[in-house]
Amino acid sequence: MTTLPAFAALDPTHDPAAKSWLASANGHADFPIQNLPLAVFRRAGSAEAWRGGVAVGDQIVDCAALAGLGTLVGGAMLSADALAAVRLASQPTLNALMAAGAPARRALRHGLFAALHSSAGAAVQNALQRCLVPQAQAQYALPSQIGDYTDFYTSIHHARNVGRVVRPDNPLTPNFQWLPIAYHGRASSVVVSGTAFRRPMGQAMAPGEAQPAYGACKRLDYELELGFWVAGRNAMGEPIALAQAEDHLFGVCLLNDWSARDHQFWEMAPLGPFLGKNFCTSVSPWIITPEALAPFRRPFVRPADEPQPLAYLDHASNRTAGAIDIQLSVAIGTEQHRQRGLAASEVSRTTFAHQYWTPAQMIAQHTVGGCNLNAGDLIGSGTISGPAPTEAGAIVELSRGGQQDVLLSATGEVRRFLQDGDEVVLQGWCQAPGAARIGLGQCCGIVLPATAP
Amino acid sequence: MTTLPAFAALDPTHDPAAKSWLASANGHADFPIQNLPLAVFRRAGSAEAWRGGVAVGDQIVDCAALAGLGTLVGGAMLSADALAAVRLASQPTLNALMAAGAPARRALRHGLFAALHSSAGAAVQNALQRCLVPQAQAQYALPSQIGDYTDFYTSIHHARNVGRVVRPDNPLTPNFQWLPIAYHGRASSVVVSGTAFRRPMGQAMAPGEAQPAYGACKRLDYELELGFWVAGRNAMGEPIALAQAEDHLFGVCLLNDWSARDHQFWEMAPLGPFLGKNFCTSVSPWIITPEALAPFRRPFVRPADEPQPLAYLDHASNRTAGAIDIQLSVAIGTEQHRQRGLAASEVSRTTFAHQYWTPAQMIAQHTVGGCNLNAGDLIGSGTISGPAPTEAGAIVELSRGGQQDVLLSATGEVRRFLQDGDEVVLQGWCQAPGAARIGLGQCCGIVLPATAP
Repeated sequence: MTTLPAFAALDPTHDPAAKSWLASANGHADFPIQNLPLAVFRRAGSAEAWRGGVAVGDQIVDCAALAGLGTLVGGAMLSADALAAVRLASQPTLNALMAAGAPARRALRHGLFAALHSSAGAAVQNALQRCLVPQAQAQYALPSQIGDYTDFYTSIHHARNVGRVVRPDNPLTPNFQWLPIAYHGRASSVVVSGTAFRRPMGQAMAPGEAQPAYGACKRLDYELELGFWVAGRNAMGEPIALAQAEDHLFGVCLLNDWSARDHQFWEMAPLGPFLGKNFCTSVSPWIITPEALAPFRRPFVRPADEPQPLAYLDHASNRTAGAIDIQLSVAIGTEQHRQRGLAASEVSRTTFAHQYWTPAQMIAQHTVGGCNLNAGDLIGSGTISGPAPTEAGAIVELSRGGQQDVLLSATGEVRRFLQDGDEVVLQGWCQAPGAARIGLGQCCGIVLPATAP
Repeated sequence: MTTLPAFAALDPTHDPAAKSWLASANGHADFPIQNLPLAVFRRAGSAEAWRGGVAVGDQIVDCAALAGLGTLVGGAMLSADALAAVRLASQPTLNALMAAGAPARRALRHGLFAALHSSAGAAVQNALQRCLVPQAQAQYALPSQIGDYTDFYTSIHHARNVGRVVRPDNPLTPNFQWLPIAYHGRASSVVVSGTAFRRPMGQAMAPGEAQPAYGACKRLDYELELGFWVAGRNAMGEPIALAQAEDHLFGVCLLNDWSARDHQFWEMAPLGPFLGKNFCTSVSPWIITPEALAPFRRPFVRPADEPQPLAYLDHASNRTAGAIDIQLSVAIGTEQHRQRGLAASEVSRTTFAHQYWTPAQMIAQHTVGGCNLNAGDLIGSGTISGPAPTEAGAIVELSRGGQQDVLLSATGEVRRFLQDGDEVVLQGWCQAPGAARIGLGQCCGIVLPATAP
């Protein structure tokens, strides 16, 4: 028997040695049996109903098909709790599963882990085989009907890098180290990875000009973020305490907060970003659960010489394991990359463990005044930039406000902002001693030319 | 036959002399037969289904009941088009009617106007009588499932008044006269008039302090606004041109953008208001249609010595009749008012005709970068303040940042910000020569004490 690290001893789904009877799962970079993320999918080009699915190896377990099989001979395949969760996951959105919170999500995980495990019986394996759809044949939808989308601003390195461009004398606003800053985003223009969007038209004030002008965005940017899907709800007027905040974290995805910097910087005084952000926000299809991320939790340490969080933003559970070490990268592909069959060129790499505030603190802050969250809401982390210049999560940081070239290594091309035809590819993954590597998959989007009005 | 003004000659529903067989409609301050606003309602305390209704006099025409009657003998009561619109309006939200846009809304108006008109036949009157519910017996819900809520900032007087508090040397940001500024709001905490809410807890930096503190809001405020309900939709990436923008205006309500100024002013640099606004936003239940507002349209004139709108924010239709002369008032009632049976004390009065940008310009700006609007979305005008000090739409303006008392005339009490138990009552109405007076009704809300965490 394998000796398990502490977290795995508590939960066999974290055993790094666990194998599946599905060969493609074993050693899969993103989706081994220890991950089991959720998405909404159907076969590409079909008119099938959208339904939830669970990634394993290069396949998707179709929750609608699985729900149709039932528990299979008295719970041999799925417990009644797991089947109930599979039924919630078989709907066209995951809002109902998200509303059911952690118990349903865990029942689903444990049920599928057992059914996919190499020790599952032949009847179970045969039944589950009939529920598999190859990921190569799938297309994805947003996993929920998003009631509200909120974007935070919780990387101190990003705040300093961008602050230097806008406010050279005072890059970090005085509130940054006291609360996780956020603004409301636009839910309607959140799209799933792979959706192309048009370069936005809008109004900007060019440096040295006396009047603003209308035109296509000249400083188009991406922002590397994580997205947090909300589980459960709180009633208006009833804050979620930090100690309970993670009960409302259904899972994590990659998020690209595309930004029109010239429009944004002209419009945002005094009420914040609006058109600079609301033309498109992309999310990766797969939701990585807190259970899958458990081995990658890290202590959340605020250095003693920095302001310590006020009591409502401080709790032992957050200090012990509030941070999550999710490795992240950004790559840019161009028309030339595609013509030459080259993979997108990586331009930065960092980890979410650097973030100045944790997801739990974001949820506690969001609700401290009584704002009500609902299952299926989306919360963005804000751009994730690390301390080194190569760890910046937006091109405005890498190019220092458009003042220097960013090299695309595969082709030798350079960028200061995004050009038409550029594709941005975000990737995320987790690795730690004694744990199986899991991945978040990709979040991609391609810039189409602006259309003349 | 009455001589009608130009707009009424085009549309008999604007004839100020038109009377209803329903006596309470004739001379009603808010809801004469010329108004016919829409809401979602049911009998208070009942478990009835929510459904749309139309206000007339002191009654509500129950659209679900009316849909059940059909056209009544070959269209004697309602045309097929009007009945189809009534059916859309009989649902638990008005999203479907809003999606159908102006043609359905106009068919409903013309059908109901004819059926309620004094010239309607006895069979029609008898049938419609069976569909009336007294407003005194009704409770209201939000009229739509709000996909997204956006709040603009389009009163130059408000911007200057509040700007002086925050940025004494530079009250008006340079972009204000070039574009209608806006930020995304929180859809989940929009509530219908009459919903009480708790004073929010949160973080603020008191003047002269070195550290922020957590506590109940000390500078609680209201904001007098209009809300605009969106009709139809635009696809992501397809802006709505100014000339077509009013096609997407389903109707108008009163809106109170409750604000926690101490929390807001601490949190809002650099990304705008968040918790300072998202604990509660109240809207009046009745939606006043563009058809009812037609007699109160006014030219939209930008003085020659001010920046003229860029081409995408300028169109002949907007110059000719882009403004709407909606009279507005704010009153504050206190526990003492209620104990003494006194009406709330009026603290300000203004008109929406002063606003620096029109609803059509707000819609054109919102979508210029490709942001997609959906039927049932809510757009706030931003605080409506006129040029005189008595025309300010927020108490932070009336009290000059909390530096002077605001008198509540009925009781002699004073306020600098709102206290627990205070009720704010917004009212709106339209009057013009040759037109019947119509009203928007009221938007009310009462402040409950903060709860200790």
